[in-house]
Amino acid sequence: MNDVINLLKAHKSVRKYKDKAIEEEKIRSIIEAAQSASTSSFIQAYTIISVENKENRAKIAKLGGDQKYIEECPLFLVFCADLNRHKVACDIHDVEMQEGYTESFIIATVDTALAAQNAMIAAESLGLGGVYIGGIRNNPNEISEILNIPTNVYPVFGMCLGYPDEDNDIKERLPMEVVFKKDTYTTDGDLERLKEYDSSIEAYYLDRTKGMRSDTWTGMMARMMSHIPRPHMKAFLEKHGFFMK
Amino acid sequence: MNDVINLLKAHKSVRKYKDKAIEEEKIRSIIEAAQSASTSSFIQAYTIISVENKENRAKIAKLGGDQKYIEECPLFLVFCADLNRHKVACDIHDVEMQEGYTESFIIATVDTALAAQNAMIAAESLGLGGVYIGGIRNNPNEISEILNIPTNVYPVFGMCLGYPDEDNDIKERLPMEVVFKKDTYTTDGDLERLKEYDSSIEAYYLDRTKGMRSDTWTGMMARMMSHIPRPHMKAFLEKHGFFMK
Repeated sequence: MNDVINLLKAHKSVRKYKDKAIEEEKIRSIIEAAQSASTSSFIQAYTIISVENKENRAKIAKLGGDQKYIEECPLFLVFCADLNRHKVACDIHDVEMQEGYTESFIIATVDTALAAQNAMIAAESLGLGGVYIGGIRNNPNEISEILNIPTNVYPVFGMCLGYPDEDNDIKERLPMEVVFKKDTYTTDGDLERLKEYDSSIEAYYLDRTKGMRSDTWTGMMARMMSHIPRPHMKAFLEKHGFFMK
Repeated sequence: MNDVINLLKAHKSVRKYKDKAIEEEKIRSIIEAAQSASTSSFIQAYTIISVENKENRAKIAKLGGDQKYIEECPLFLVFCADLNRHKVACDIHDVEMQEGYTESFIIATVDTALAAQNAMIAAESLGLGGVYIGGIRNNPNEISEILNIPTNVYPVFGMCLGYPDEDNDIKERLPMEVVFKKDTYTTDGDLERLKEYDSSIEAYYLDRTKGMRSDTWTGMMARMMSHIPRPHMKAFLEKHGFFMK
């Protein structure tokens, strides 16, 4: 439809990078683009940390699920939801910040994600590729200690970026009718659509692995969702001032 | 730096729209772009509802903070974090979904925001403008009832889109050094930077309002953060299965 939409639709995760640094001006453009994203009531509730220190990278790679590309990628960014500087603003104006509300947690988390997605798109427009790293929530206490992350701030995800040294397939998404509804939430017809999607995903994996892997979307989701997901997150967030009041 | 980054950096909220429908194929491109965003372990944990029904639009506009543009915009999308179809996937494969964990809440909320930001960028690339509507969290119970939103799903935000009938200024963001850190989280020098930013924002409002409004960023944040933010969200989310376990 246009070049921007073609770029968005061409997204695929990239986990293998050329041994080539990203130019400083490109990094600045990526961060500027991130900052240009929408932000709830101008709150700008995020901080982006670029981890250059090699030792810390290695530690985070291990803590983040033993993902080597965290260590190897030219640029590794940690996106933190951040209400710390709003606390500073309250201090400056001698008022008390209302801390620990679920709503503030949502605002800061969404703000962070919108900025990050702009960063990803900006990076891809510059010929880079990357991947989000939810794995930093595997060991958020240790990672927060390494990065010196204070109260009212939490690391939401990481992002590896670099010049691509692999070309993955674009993964077919759910049928549009499953995720896009008119007027009200309804699941009419979705079961059939999910079955068709399962067949399509199954064919994709069979083809890609020459018959070695047979998998479906509902199968993958059932496996994943039947395991307790990172049960330490609640205690970790509370420690960082996000009490879900 | 390139056209995509220029587009990202040119973002401004648009709340006034021409009386012109958005072409169906453009809407489909916007949703396709949304679906192309990164998604945690392929979970695709969101549903987008386009509210066309005029009565419901009017109700939501009122419930969402009496924002007329929710009623008037050509396209109003409600972005919901959605783990309902993953429950269906678990049912299909006869396993029990682990529900109510904070981690799942984060995954679904982030997935939704990434998709939404792609939608916003796609829309802007097509000559449209828009604004996120956090106001749907003012009355999430009523809005969920109108939209028939079930357990394991919650409306994160809305989005108004249309052909712009106003041209707002781009709002200056925080100095990059405040939000972008090397290696560790540090606030060294930030107080000075915030003061400079305050001066710049103050000058902007004075200029724009011909001296009628004097405001600073820390002042706005202090006012906002000293009020309890949507304290009903916790109970609402629990009602919808998000227990923050």
